[in-house]
Amino acid sequence: MTNQSTVVDLRLSSKRVVGKPVKLPTVLACSGSDSSGGAGIEADIKSITAFGCYALTAITSLTAQNTKGVTSIENTDPKFFEEILEANFEDIEIDVVKTGLLNPESSRLLLKFLDKYHKGKPFVLDPVLVATSGSMLADQHELGFTIDSHFKKATIITPNFEEACVIYSYLKKLKTVDELGEIETLEDLKGMAKFIQQTTHCNSVLLKGGHIPWNRNEQLVKKKGGDPAYITDILYQGHLDKFTVIKTDYLTSSGTHGSGCTIAASIAANIARSLKIEDAVISSIRYVHQAIFGADETLGQGKGPLNHVFHISPPINGTSAENNFLPFYPGHFLDYLLEHPLVSPIWKNYINHPFLENVATNKLAKNRFIHYICQDYVYLASYARVHGLAAGVAPDIESIKAEAHIIDSIMEEMHRHKDVLNSRGIVKLDELRPSKACKQYSDYLLNIAKTSDWVAIKIALAPCIFGYYYAAIYARSFIKDEADVDEEFLNWINTYTGDWYKDAVDEARQSLESHMQAVSPVQLAELVKIFADVCQLEVNFWTSPMELPEQDL
Amino acid sequence: MTNQSTVVDLRLSSKRVVGKPVKLPTVLACSGSDSSGGAGIEADIKSITAFGCYALTAITSLTAQNTKGVTSIENTDPKFFEEILEANFEDIEIDVVKTGLLNPESSRLLLKFLDKYHKGKPFVLDPVLVATSGSMLADQHELGFTIDSHFKKATIITPNFEEACVIYSYLKKLKTVDELGEIETLEDLKGMAKFIQQTTHCNSVLLKGGHIPWNRNEQLVKKKGGDPAYITDILYQGHLDKFTVIKTDYLTSSGTHGSGCTIAASIAANIARSLKIEDAVISSIRYVHQAIFGADETLGQGKGPLNHVFHISPPINGTSAENNFLPFYPGHFLDYLLEHPLVSPIWKNYINHPFLENVATNKLAKNRFIHYICQDYVYLASYARVHGLAAGVAPDIESIKAEAHIIDSIMEEMHRHKDVLNSRGIVKLDELRPSKACKQYSDYLLNIAKTSDWVAIKIALAPCIFGYYYAAIYARSFIKDEADVDEEFLNWINTYTGDWYKDAVDEARQSLESHMQAVSPVQLAELVKIFADVCQLEVNFWTSPMELPEQDL
Repeated sequence: MTNQSTVVDLRLSSKRVVGKPVKLPTVLACSGSDSSGGAGIEADIKSITAFGCYALTAITSLTAQNTKGVTSIENTDPKFFEEILEANFEDIEIDVVKTGLLNPESSRLLLKFLDKYHKGKPFVLDPVLVATSGSMLADQHELGFTIDSHFKKATIITPNFEEACVIYSYLKKLKTVDELGEIETLEDLKGMAKFIQQTTHCNSVLLKGGHIPWNRNEQLVKKKGGDPAYITDILYQGHLDKFTVIKTDYLTSSGTHGSGCTIAASIAANIARSLKIEDAVISSIRYVHQAIFGADETLGQGKGPLNHVFHISPPINGTSAENNFLPFYPGHFLDYLLEHPLVSPIWKNYINHPFLENVATNKLAKNRFIHYICQDYVYLASYARVHGLAAGVAPDIESIKAEAHIIDSIMEEMHRHKDVLNSRGIVKLDELRPSKACKQYSDYLLNIAKTSDWVAIKIALAPCIFGYYYAAIYARSFIKDEADVDEEFLNWINTYTGDWYKDAVDEARQSLESHMQAVSPVQLAELVKIFADVCQLEVNFWTSPMELPEQDL
Repeated sequence: MTNQSTVVDLRLSSKRVVGKPVKLPTVLACSGSDSSGGAGIEADIKSITAFGCYALTAITSLTAQNTKGVTSIENTDPKFFEEILEANFEDIEIDVVKTGLLNPESSRLLLKFLDKYHKGKPFVLDPVLVATSGSMLADQHELGFTIDSHFKKATIITPNFEEACVIYSYLKKLKTVDELGEIETLEDLKGMAKFIQQTTHCNSVLLKGGHIPWNRNEQLVKKKGGDPAYITDILYQGHLDKFTVIKTDYLTSSGTHGSGCTIAASIAANIARSLKIEDAVISSIRYVHQAIFGADETLGQGKGPLNHVFHISPPINGTSAENNFLPFYPGHFLDYLLEHPLVSPIWKNYINHPFLENVATNKLAKNRFIHYICQDYVYLASYARVHGLAAGVAPDIESIKAEAHIIDSIMEEMHRHKDVLNSRGIVKLDELRPSKACKQYSDYLLNIAKTSDWVAIKIALAPCIFGYYYAAIYARSFIKDEADVDEEFLNWINTYTGDWYKDAVDEARQSLESHMQAVSPVQLAELVKIFADVCQLEVNFWTSPMELPEQDL
């Protein structure tokens, strides 16, 4: 084929180095879908994902909606909803159940499954009634049923102020919310939260204050006026008879669509992560506050969605949950290096060097190849010495052992070179003198070995051992039929694609990766520089024989 | 109320410091829902979120399924699906459209909306036909329509091997896939990918090789046997006539359910992030590889889901997308400090010190209060000096200015103390001698100022300025009616809850936060230690007057 073709080899992904994650905390979200992605099941999945947990879904209804409003709602057929719950509960261990908008049928079905599969396990209930938009979402009479039958099973319920008023008046058997009387002070709100908990026997109540900001004088803006200064959320934990009052700055952002779903889903995820209720609530309020603040206000023409991902770095360029300090996840430092802008172009020049295609296609003049083998023989002696020096400053016994093994492999490599050269009548290998490229490279390594610490030495040694693996694979890619390839050339290529070499490379990688979590960002920059320098020295090393006048031996 | 009650004040969230995110890249995912959360729209939302993008949804069908199989499928009513697409397209600017499992109606409707709203914009088409489980998901005749009408609009299509075979035979007008003949080599697969692109006129084809591993000898295991060694995915870009062959290690993990949806959704997200097609594909293959490797194999009894969140650190404890190096996101260093296990308990002892309740409830003997004011006056002189020394080593003009403003505020604070003391006939303030607690604190600050760098000095100065803000709010919480409070006490409390002080605190916070991105993890640990030390010195400072014999002045 004449097409342009590139091979991207992502093997040696050092899978043995990367620690398997602990069991993923699981949350089953039961809610309606918001097609615009800001609220409902979409907000649930995004929030649960943002906290590193696993989301399952039981979609109670589909909605066609955007930031300006809801066009239409279609409830999931009850029979079908039951099949969804059965499929989830009977197969996957669910740590926390979180409910948002329910319809009468789905709410009754859920009750059945909570009793059958989830008795006594965490259950976060968001009594969705009034959206941030102010529009009524659920039927108030239906809410009565939910209050009587679901609340007592809930670990925490998360009404906003309007919802709390409706629940409160229902419990007080008032005809309308207007009979509630004035609710003006923090104490009034605390009383409301405590009354709801004690009457409904849910474990805890989070009374969300997002819709009722306070002014600088600690008065409700809607009662006493003034500029909104802060928001107060109130957590009441019945079993501890404890209030936690959480105050956050008032934000003017329009991106609040879905904040209710998001806070309940975040609490569910945090509980699944084994946080205590109070910590789960505080962490979730922080998250929602930041997600509202970070909202992309260009999204949609109405009340826009939160930014659920303000803290997420895309994978690879991002960091691992086990490691907040470095821009690669454990076991993937080499991947980071090879993709680094300072390294990547030089690395490609190295592992795709023309020398390799010339070898694989018999185009390399023999004298150039033999010159290269001689120089590589000289180089390998220094290379082995530097591994010795590395062993001298290695941080642990394992690393010393690894260095020794690598030296063994280098000795085997030199032995293969020796055979080639002897067969050519070149026997006094100790008398070989280094070329300019060879000397520069060896001097660089020895200088690092004498002046730097173990990790820096390892990095300086890395391009050779890892590069030859990739380079040989690149060379092989030109071979259609081994029979066509000069035997010396083929043997040389097979040396570095063989199992013995891959094993050496695997061991080297593990030894390297297992120590990379200890470096600082500053040190990291130095290591990248060293790696790039050495890759260039490797390029020069293959370029130098190509500059010799050709002759066949 | 007699309940236990805690106030958690999350104000001063330094919102002015946190950089607003750039516009969120948006992806509309059209697919069926997988209730078990591993594939379908759930996998789409998780993947798009994992890459820091914004997901919108158009759910084509609901399924009741788990890791063992699909119980039932219910397609979304076409009329309703149309409303969903209209709601999304007419309101939110969609960067990329990604489709998974479509049914005949939804596929025709989507076509209409692509022409109306998304002409010439990126469109990632996953021709879902065969799931990783091997079961047929879509009707093959229907696929014919999709091939003829959708492919030419696609930026990239992502068939797996089986799907590619079906598409290939359809295009070759073969009766069955069996007439395809042998596909044995990499060249055969490349030919297939190129033929599909050139015949259907999609922009690019990613031929996924996850189901056809290769052995160590670079032969297809299903043809030549041997152990699976690696996977080969082939990208062919028609406009460049370029192949990219991506090789990854073969993984034995059972957690591959949803890998097809995940790779297509990741590619869509990466394209929305403005990556080039080749980079988008490589990044996505890496992600899926790691997500399969990191799969939690305890999830479900069948073919389990990928781990979409292996790289995600929960917010607050996690890092920001703008900052991969430190365990807090920009503008939230103080939050990190106050929640740090070394700091948090001492901080609470400080800002909830009994001294404060005594002041707010008139229980503090006046001689203790006056002693405190005298000592605080002495302390503030050193405190102001240290801010001067900080200005001397400040990294930029802004910081020098900020130090000067803080010194102004301290002078105002000292002036208020002076008035209190003068009214008590204490006039020779220069003759005041520091108590033990005061001297220890001042010496500690001056020592840091002389031996450490600017950031360390700022941290040493931080507990005083920030702590008094929170402490005063704590004190206020005991006040029901200001009229009940001793005037001197009330004035003192109001000093630190007043606007002038909040403004000073805001400015101090911004000055601090704006420089915290430069510290290394090692330096960070030292800063935490300094902050904790100083909090303890503050505790001692308020404890010392409480130890004086009480007397009323």
